Amino acid sequence: MGLTIGVDIGGTKIAAGVVDEEGAILATCKVPTPPTPEGVIDAIADAVRTVSEGFEVEAVGIGAAGYVDDKRATVLFAPNINWRHEALKDKVEQRVGLPVVVENDANAAAWGEYRFGAGQGHDDVICITLGTGLGGGIIIGNKLRRGRFGVAAEFGHIRVVPDGLLCGCGSQGCWEQYASGRALVRYARQRAQATPGNAELLLGLGDGTPEGIEGKHISLAARQGDPVAVDSFRELARWVGSGLADLASLFDPSAFIVGGGLSDEGDLVLDPIRKSFRRWLVGGQWRPHAQVLAAQLGGKAGLVGAADLARQG
Amino acid sequence: MGLTIGVDIGGTKIAAGVVDEEGAILATCKVPTPPTPEGVIDAIADAVRTVSEGFEVEAVGIGAAGYVDDKRATVLFAPNINWRHEALKDKVEQRVGLPVVVENDANAAAWGEYRFGAGQGHDDVICITLGTGLGGGIIIGNKLRRGRFGVAAEFGHIRVVPDGLLCGCGSQGCWEQYASGRALVRYARQRAQATPGNAELLLGLGDGTPEGIEGKHISLAARQGDPVAVDSFRELARWVGSGLADLASLFDPSAFIVGGGLSDEGDLVLDPIRKSFRRWLVGGQWRPHAQVLAAQLGGKAGLVGAADLARQG
Amino acid sequence: MGLTIGVDIGGTKIAAGVVDEEGAILATCKVPTPPTPEGVIDAIADAVRTVSEGFEVEAVGIGAAGYVDDKRATVLFAPNINWRHEALKDKVEQRVGLPVVVENDANAAAWGEYRFGAGQGHDDVICITLGTGLGGGIIIGNKLRRGRFGVAAEFGHIRVVPDGLLCGCGSQGCWEQYASGRALVRYARQRAQATPGNAELLLGLGDGTPEGIEGKHISLAARQGDPVAVDSFRELARWVGSGLADLASLFDPSAFIVGGGLSDEGDLVLDPIRKSFRRWLVGGQWRPHAQVLAAQLGGKAGLVGAADLARQG
Amino acid sequence: MGLTIGVDIGGTKIAAGVVDEEGAILATCKVPTPPTPEGVIDAIADAVRTVSEGFEVEAVGIGAAGYVDDKRATVLFAPNINWRHEALKDKVEQRVGLPVVVENDANAAAWGEYRFGAGQGHDDVICITLGTGLGGGIIIGNKLRRGRFGVAAEFGHIRVVPDGLLCGCGSQGCWEQYASGRALVRYARQRAQATPGNAELLLGLGDGTPEGIEGKHISLAARQGDPVAVDSFRELARWVGSGLADLASLFDPSAFIVGGGLSDEGDLVLDPIRKSFRRWLVGGQWRPHAQVLAAQLGGKAGLVGAADLARQG
Repeated sequence: MGLTIGVDIGGTKIAAGVVDEEGAILATCKVPTPPTPEGVIDAIADAVRTVSEGFEVEAVGIGAAGYVDDKRATVLFAPNINWRHEALKDKVEQRVGLPVVVENDANAAAWGEYRFGAGQGHDDVICITLGTGLGGGIIIGNKLRRGRFGVAAEFGHIRVVPDGLLCGCGSQGCWEQYASGRALVRYARQRAQATPGNAELLLGLGDGTPEGIEGKHISLAARQGDPVAVDSFRELARWVGSGLADLASLFDPSAFIVGGGLSDEGDLVLDPIRKSFRRWLVGGQWRPHAQVLAAQLGGKAGLVGAADLARQG
Repeated sequence: MGLTIGVDIGGTKIAAGVVDEEGAILATCKVPTPPTPEGVIDAIADAVRTVSEGFEVEAVGIGAAGYVDDKRATVLFAPNINWRHEALKDKVEQRVGLPVVVENDANAAAWGEYRFGAGQGHDDVICITLGTGLGGGIIIGNKLRRGRFGVAAEFGHIRVVPDGLLCGCGSQGCWEQYASGRALVRYARQRAQATPGNAELLLGLGDGTPEGIEGKHISLAARQGDPVAVDSFRELARWVGSGLADLASLFDPSAFIVGGGLSDEGDLVLDPIRKSFRRWLVGGQWRPHAQVLAAQLGGKAGLVGAADLARQG
Repeated sequence: MGLTIGVDIGGTKIAAGVVDEEGAILATCKVPTPPTPEGVIDAIADAVRTVSEGFEVEAVGIGAAGYVDDKRATVLFAPNINWRHEALKDKVEQRVGLPVVVENDANAAAWGEYRFGAGQGHDDVICITLGTGLGGGIIIGNKLRRGRFGVAAEFGHIRVVPDGLLCGCGSQGCWEQYASGRALVRYARQRAQATPGNAELLLGLGDGTPEGIEGKHISLAARQGDPVAVDSFRELARWVGSGLADLASLFDPSAFIVGGGLSDEGDLVLDPIRKSFRRWLVGGQWRPHAQVLAAQLGGKAGLVGAADLARQG
Repeated sequence: MGLTIGVDIGGTKIAAGVVDEEGAILATCKVPTPPTPEGVIDAIADAVRTVSEGFEVEAVGIGAAGYVDDKRATVLFAPNINWRHEALKDKVEQRVGLPVVVENDANAAAWGEYRFGAGQGHDDVICITLGTGLGGGIIIGNKLRRGRFGVAAEFGHIRVVPDGLLCGCGSQGCWEQYASGRALVRYARQRAQATPGNAELLLGLGDGTPEGIEGKHISLAARQGDPVAVDSFRELARWVGSGLADLASLFDPSAFIVGGGLSDEGDLVLDPIRKSFRRWLVGGQWRPHAQVLAAQLGGKAGLVGAADLARQG
């Protein structure tokens, strides 16, 4: 099979791209995410038609946040778009006249990294996506593992603190509440509130108040040694690394790949995570250690992965 | 392939059995576990020779507590026997003249249940073993998943309480410290100490002191409605069920199988676990629920599983 | 000194009452709480003038939520009304021409119970107020203990869960998030969401959805044996009782008094709290146990206590 | 009243000293702590007789670990010596012919610091003693506050981690398990085990193994910048500071005094504690902050405090 299209449905934009067999993107387009479920279907179809012009494409892969069923056809539940048991595959196939595969967006990104990014050469890889929230994907024996009902790898919602922070999912103490971009901002704001003298640089990058601190400020300030910013990254790493240690106890992969927006910071975020991972790994002196790698495809991983999953059928 | 031998190395006994292709045990023998590493090798060889008399056997599968490498040959680390990078496969093959496969004991038990017990008919199964400690095994796509380096499925050592109870592994807050036979006894003793008036029946089954409470007393007392015993099982179920909910977020299997000594109690322990699992399952209203099943093979699961893994080569 | 006036400033109503030396209320009036800080001052003055008509009163005691300074004159910070370093004593004295004492509302309620309610005859009493949130007061050696700067006894904000639920105060894991009316409702909603089959009665009292469950429904359903309602009260008691055990380690009082709206439920809430307190009390077999008593003055405790504190000057 | 004797009963030594009205020690003697309860009584009497030779003393104050009753006469329970309801006051009075006052050792040390050390000039002081374990004392309104039954200020046993580390007292998650000399050693050993490359200096001070790390090594290594040692002190400070923040919410003192062996390290341990205290203090922007002071009397605080309490009768 030759060219396929990958579609990445984000909270604000829908991106579509024509992808070849080696993961190269030949053309892309982006449209705003419409507010209604039906509008999203239309927008996907439009984007697919627009981007495929001039190419002979054979299938479409769609990455969407939420639970996707085991047939990779229906979105059971989407947190951002109001989809409940939405027959996404059928509806899009009817519009675009191509075979469609639907996949969870973090799964698609994991597959993209495994095939064309940091995961090449590994048979057993666990990917985590550190964005606003925390997602992930599981590759075991060179296959994406989706679980019996399609909803595996919901890493963000394992409980890491009993009676912990309330999560949007209704549970408490979910990993995502401690290991995500949103968590990083919370760490920085709390610390800046309590000890403003240690956050002068950081506070100066925003409006001067703790509430004005945003993610980009924390990275910038940390690179310049702001104590609160550095400590916030350390706290983030503490939670990411201890969670990876748990995943190592469960999956024992050869590599972890850390993707998502936070991974763009490179070693600023990766190095403390590696250190924390070694700190918490159980039985570390008796077993080979998984590598902790930065993702390589950036924001394109989901689109490229979805396209490749469609190619594989 | 016809008959194979399964060997189960326990802390006090080594059991060997001749097993046929349908998981039936045709002959067994048991010997005490010797105190030295070399003594254990001798005892395994003796047991294999003794039990195989009169049978034509083709391979030996050994289940041992600890980390087993990816070649299923070397025990990297055993918590009970002083094995460190022990070439168990080679040593036993030299003694018994048969091909040997080494496997983690909880993995072997999981495979036994999957093939011949509660897991039949399921492609994706997670087994947990609630004995003194907590172990487990992962079957995905009809294969035992051992991880890249052989040490996957160390369920007992995922962290469920930050800064929690000290574990024998050196970490704190491991699941095993909250969900195991040892944990159940601790729950009962603490409660009986604090509120002896609610544990009269339970205390009467031992020597009258909290320290005299043992596992078997708790089961007996719970069946008769002793408040502390009932509450101790409820506390155990709280931790088992919430952990299974996490495993569902990760693996999304079609079934969980609960084995180990505690599973002999049947619905006394299974029903509260099922209730707790539903309580903690994330997104439960949007997804099919895994079944929570009692193991069927009892203490034989490891032996039968090890024999079958040897058959499969 | 003869008659004094107590004022209780609530989120929706301001209550004023003329109180005699034995804690009896001779007259009362209530007005809605105005939305602005200045409006509240006016309303207090009006209420004092209205209620004192026909009585000869000698002082005014005001109970207000928030931090009150060591001179009992200034509200440093109020969570509900927008007071920041508000000179409440001076402003009200100017309006009403009587000496004014300002006190934290939970402190005032504690004093009321100590003097005229459940605490009579005790020298060392710890009161907690289980309302929407959690407050408290400390009586040691027959004196209300306010701390060096006036802000002692902020029981609701001791941390009982590291990395726990976010609190309105900006911290995480505050006791108030686990032991309060709001917490009780959260317990019931979460459980009803996860296991609706165990909450049929409870759900039927509201609009049928977990979000429709309110505090009054839980009490009603618990009295009729609804499993989710009963379990929610048990969870609440687990947190209240373990916190009281901590307070016993610190203060070793002769009695705890449990007041606030939840205490109106009497033994439905008190009995599980007593049981939980004994469960968690450290060294319980070596020391006399504090009693856990229900408050006796209901919603009047704050008003009566504030009046009496004003009398004492 | 003129001279009194203070006695400090430690796990290995019993120290006695003649103390004047200004807290000066005029003479001292030390004897080993005998292994039997009766032997300890004899040793106390001997030490008192020996040290008082040549002085006219009027009373004896004894500081002992454990619960002391409200009459300051009977040790209800001692963790180290096998005392259960031991009538220590009567027995020692019979031997030495002087009035005797018995006090909890951490209370005595708190009183010593309040009267003659870091607490001078403060009316409301909370002292904590960071030794092997964690103890403390409460001074409110210039009086030592012992609780209704004599066992207040058991700071070490408030629960800071639900389901946390097992404590010698039978509970789990006691503050003492996270904030004490023993905890510091555990932090260092765990970190050195996990990341030996960051503990080269620290490991070199002992026998090269994590188990060989002792408290004194950690201080020494931290002063030279060893990453694991520094991080261990930071972890200790995290727990001490957050606990002090809770005590501020409860007691609102004007000062905290940090004593015990760890306080000998001065700012190495005090500075991170101060930072952590500010980090966790609830409502810190709206209230005056308590000072966090290093104790001044070192290991003599208990002896001097006990002597002064005896003087006050």
